[in-house]
Formats: sequence, C-alpha cells, structure tokens
Amino acid sequence: MTVATIFIDSSAANADLLYTTKFLVGDPVLYIEIEGKKHLFLNALEVDRGKSDAKVDEVICTLDYKPLLDTKKDAYLQIADIFLKERNITDLLVSDTFSALYYKEFKDLGYNIEIKRAPLYTARIFKTEEEKNKIKAVMKAVDNSFAVAVQILKDSVIDGDYIRYKGELLTSEFLKRTINIELFKNDCICEEIIIASGNQAIDPHNRGNGLLLANTPIIFDIFPQSMVTKYFGDETRTVIKGKATEEQKKLYNTVLKGQQIGLEMLKPGINGMEVHNAINNYFISEGFVTGNIEGRMQGFFHGTGHGLGLEIHEFPRVSSAADEIMKEGYVVTVEPGLYYKDLGGVRIEDTVIITKDGIENLTFTDKFFEIE
Amino acid sequence: MTVATIFIDSSAANADLLYTTKFLVGDPVLYIEIEGKKHLFLNALEVDRGKSDAKVDEVICTLDYKPLLDTKKDAYLQIADIFLKERNITDLLVSDTFSALYYKEFKDLGYNIEIKRAPLYTARIFKTEEEKNKIKAVMKAVDNSFAVAVQILKDSVIDGDYIRYKGELLTSEFLKRTINIELFKNDCICEEIIIASGNQAIDPHNRGNGLLLANTPIIFDIFPQSMVTKYFGDETRTVIKGKATEEQKKLYNTVLKGQQIGLEMLKPGINGMEVHNAINNYFISEGFVTGNIEGRMQGFFHGTGHGLGLEIHEFPRVSSAADEIMKEGYVVTVEPGLYYKDLGGVRIEDTVIITKDGIENLTFTDKFFEIE
Repeated sequence: MTVATIFIDSSAANADLLYTTKFLVGDPVLYIEIEGKKHLFLNALEVDRGKSDAKVDEVICTLDYKPLLDTKKDAYLQIADIFLKERNITDLLVSDTFSALYYKEFKDLGYNIEIKRAPLYTARIFKTEEEKNKIKAVMKAVDNSFAVAVQILKDSVIDGDYIRYKGELLTSEFLKRTINIELFKNDCICEEIIIASGNQAIDPHNRGNGLLLANTPIIFDIFPQSMVTKYFGDETRTVIKGKATEEQKKLYNTVLKGQQIGLEMLKPGINGMEVHNAINNYFISEGFVTGNIEGRMQGFFHGTGHGLGLEIHEFPRVSSAADEIMKEGYVVTVEPGLYYKDLGGVRIEDTVIITKDGIENLTFTDKFFEIE
Repeated sequence: MTVATIFIDSSAANADLLYTTKFLVGDPVLYIEIEGKKHLFLNALEVDRGKSDAKVDEVICTLDYKPLLDTKKDAYLQIADIFLKERNITDLLVSDTFSALYYKEFKDLGYNIEIKRAPLYTARIFKTEEEKNKIKAVMKAVDNSFAVAVQILKDSVIDGDYIRYKGELLTSEFLKRTINIELFKNDCICEEIIIASGNQAIDPHNRGNGLLLANTPIIFDIFPQSMVTKYFGDETRTVIKGKATEEQKKLYNTVLKGQQIGLEMLKPGINGMEVHNAINNYFISEGFVTGNIEGRMQGFFHGTGHGLGLEIHEFPRVSSAADEIMKEGYVVTVEPGLYYKDLGGVRIEDTVIITKDGIENLTFTDKFFEIE
C-alpha cells in the first residue's frame, strides 16, 4: 500500500512543510510526497522561485492543471485528486495541523487518511550539526543584543523607583526596540520580547510595558527567529538595577542553582519529568513552594523547558506533565523560574542540545544579577 | 438547536481567534462561544494576563479541570467535551483552519460539526473606523520607512551597473534592514520586504538580494504588521536610480495609469474581476501582453489586489479568478504590475478602503520613478 504525505498550507505557518521543502512561502501551497519523492505545486507567481530554491524532486505549476479544473471548486483539492488518482493512491498521511475542511473533502472523495501529530517528520526532533549551528547563530545574536541592554542599564542612574538613561526614564518598550534593532543586524527578530519588572514580572507571559523599576528583578526573555534560516533561539536573564536585598539574592541564587541542577541532569535516557521534579524539590527545600497563593499561582508554575527549532515551542516538553525520555540531538530550553507577589520574578534560561553523554550549552550570555 | 463556535489554536496563528478575543497568545488555547457568550480557557501561565486583557465573557483556568481529566488524553478535547455536555450542546461550528485531528476526535465523540471557510467572523471583512485607523497607522510607518530608503538612493551615486552609498555598494539587504529599523520605531515589522532590481524584479515574489542595479527598475514592496495592533499595511513603489529609458518610462507610466484605472473604478457594487480586466485590457491596448514568453510567465500575471487586515492576504481577492462584488468597508490593495525579461518589473500598490461611493486611499507615499 502506497501512502502519500500531503500538505496544503503555507510553509511560513507550517514548520514540517518548511522542513521538507526548505522553501519559504506565505500563501498555501500543495505538497505531495510519495515514496520519498517530493512534488511541490506552485502558482505562476511562485513557480520560478520554487524551481530555483525548493529542495524537492519536482516543482509543478498549478497553471498546467487549469484546463482540467472546475473553477467553482477548490483548485488544490482537484489537483491533488487528479495527481493521486493517476498513481492509484487512496491512502493519505497528514499532520494534525491539516485543515478540517480538506480532511472532510478528501474523505468525501474516498481517501483513507491517517492523522499524525506534528512533527510529521520525526527527524525534525533530532537536530543535525547544521541545525545546531543555525540555532547557535541565533543565540549569538541574542547575546549581542542583550549586551546592549546591559550597557544601557550600566549607563543609567536610579531615580527613585525608576531608572533614568540619558535624561529619560527607561521603559520596557525602549529596551525592546533597542534589542530588536541589534537582533536585526544578525537578521533575527523577536516580536514578543519580554522585559518585565516588579509585579509585571511575576506573570511569566506578561510582555512588560511602561517604566522599568529599579531595585526589583527585571526579566529579559528573548526568543528570536532568524529571518534567513527560520530557526529560533531562546534565552532568559534576570537582572536588577541597584543593590539586591538578601531576599532577592536568595530568590535569584535559588533559581540559578535550580537551573544548574537541570543542566547537570540532562543527558540521553533521563526523563524530563525527573529533571523538572528535581529542580522543584530543590526549590521546596529552600522554602519556595508553588501553588495558588492569595488567588494567583505563585512559585514555579511552568515547565522547565521545551524543544525548539523551526518552531519556538516544539517536541519535547521538559515538565512534570510530560513523560519524555531525552535523546541525543534534542534541543531544549532549561528555564526554571520563581515568581512571588511583591518579591518579584526570576527566570534564567539557556538553550542546550543533548549530546552523547550530557549537553552542549548553546547559550553565550553570562549569568549575573546586580547591575549597579 | 444551540451551536457552539470552537477554536483550539493560537491567536498569533489564527486571525479569527485574535479578532474575537483581542488576546494575543502564541500557544494553542481553547475558545468556546455559545449564543454570543465567549469562554476562553487558559493555562496557569496565561490566565492572569487573559483576565486583564482578553475581551471575553469568561476566562477559565484549565487547572480547574485537572482533577477531571485523563492525563493520557488531550486536555482541551476533554475540557471542551465536559463543558459542552454540561450545556447539552452537540453541534459545533469551526473554521476550515480547525485541526483535522480535533475534527476527527470531536466527530468520534458524537458531535455534529459544520466547517466554515475563514473568516469565520464575517464582520472581519468590513473594517470599522478603528480598524481603518490601525491599518492607516501601519501605512504611515511604511511611508516613513520608504522615505529613508529614497533619501539613501538620492545620496548615492551610480557606479557602473551599481549604486554606491557612503563608499559602499548598495545591497537589497542593507536597505531592508534600514527600512525595518525605521518600521520598528513605529512598532511595525516586515520580515519579507521585497527590494528587487533587474531580472530579480521580474519574479514578483523574489525578495531580492545582493547588489542593487542602477538604471533598472527597483521594486520596493513593504507589507508590515503592527506588533501592537497586529494589523497589516501593504504598499509597493518602483523607482529607478538614474535616468530611465523611454521604454522603461512607458512601462512605468502604463502601470501607473493602470493602477489609476483600478482606483477610479473601485466602489461598492463593482465586481473585482471587472476592475482587474479593465486594467489588463488597458495594458494590452498599450502593447503589454501577458502569457508564457520564452518559458516564463511575463506581463501582468498576478491579481490586482487582495483584502488585508489581521492577515496580509484575506478576503476578498481582486482578480480575474475571483468573482467578488466590492462592498463598503472592504480594505483591499490595488497593485497592478508588469514584468518583462531584460526590461524589468514595475509594480505600484496602494491600500484603500471601499467607502460609500468610491474609495479612501490609506497610502501616504507619492508616486515617482526616477531618482537622479
């Protein structure tokens, strides 16, 4: 039984499709793979670019099918049906991101369809040397951009609760723009940088806005994508402008040591859940408990990490809820954090690749807390 | 019969979900709408941000369902099933972007599912004053950024086939970076700017790279998204560094007049196909035919325009292949182009909104060809 893998999607939105074609296209295209042979169907607008850039066996112009099509019906559905029928193929493999409408329409045409959870290409999970280097290049760009932010904080003065830089009070927005302009120099972009201080930082997905606070932890979470390679990197650092209190120092050092525990445990064969629980147990032993406190989640209430590559969040997760054994070639983040109302939030995150007997840390940035 | 509209998706990827919740989230969330009441299910990491930002009737923490769930199965599927069963709902409405896997799983649980082509919220097509102004703000950012590129071309000198700026030969990459840094100042970003000259420009979706050519048309196609509002803008200008030949001038002026024809025809009640054909007929009358010439498509071989809003390409299309009547409140691009090998490519594009009796042009940038 021959099975055809099929995508009708844009490769900008579908990492599996980008992975298999190496061709970036913003509008939906049709892709059919049969016994390892890759067929990419592009319209007149994309076909020349496709022929020169796409890593596929055949680029077919959808115009070639025009005389055969009912213009009232979906073109890709009809083209796929003609192409598959010519080859007597009735069995399809799609990703769970496949459109429900196309799924129904192919079913109605009599196809058997198996749906596989993304990533459809399992090879995507295991990063090659080339992919590792693409991720590392993004991490280098993060390091460069964060250095500029740190320099600004060094060149700033504390003004009451706030931070003053070149006469202006420093905002989250200003630093995000500055970091992105630096990222741009390396063809990277991060639309959703988090720069959050004070009680903004205790909500781990609050992007941060407005005036940054002195004397409270400021979380910088930078996770750009390369506009050229499309790979992501992910890094978080927490700093404080001013002198940290003993309580703040303990919070920071506990997260730092928690992360170290995670980095040291990660290797092929270990369960991510075990890593997460070891970090959390250490936090508990230091008196930092997790749970709903005064109506909001506080403590360490997110996972330790996640895979990344062509997507910012991809397989595997490293968390108490994910029973996943680490394998050589996985790229994951290690990003424990602790968040308490009024005390503040601290998160420290590196991106690492699992090697034969441990990890290689792909992160370039030093870890320090106080900026005076 | 009560029907529940359901999304399981990230609002960063799903414009309908962003439209209805006004809440930007990168990871998939569960959304259920019943008789106009909006229920958004968020994990512990997102729930506080959701409660303050999302424009919904109820934000529910997925943790609340934890005791009821089988951890081996998909949480959103189970939560939705519990929530719907409590309300005796068996009929679902989903968008065609709904996951094939969830579609199958809800079917297997006994739900009837209607699939509607996006946009699921028809109101999204008709832009409000507020939405128009968001698009206009992006168009203003484009205008600012393009002005910087034009100034650079003015300050450059022609050096043989190339363009020299401050001692360096000017590249597509340099201008893209410069434009993006300007866009950033207005919180906009365009990852895929096209700056293409010479024979690169005759492939309308070639992004352009390397040294820019003097004395040939250079296409600038800038279509950023606001990182704050998430609305897009779209504009194209074509310029030439140096003196245009008569043939190049005729190409430019024909596209310019073709665009003018389109802009003048657009109003409520007109069919976009008719607008496209009028432009193309004018091109033919000027001797600019479209078709496969020497193995590649040349002439005017793309549509006249497309809707835009929270997506860069959305309903309606304005093209020979789209039988769509224009209505008040549609925002569309008007972007005819002509592309011929060795002569070059010219495209001129404005973004406009269909008003009661014509259009309002949302574009700020003048149209000119030669930069000496």
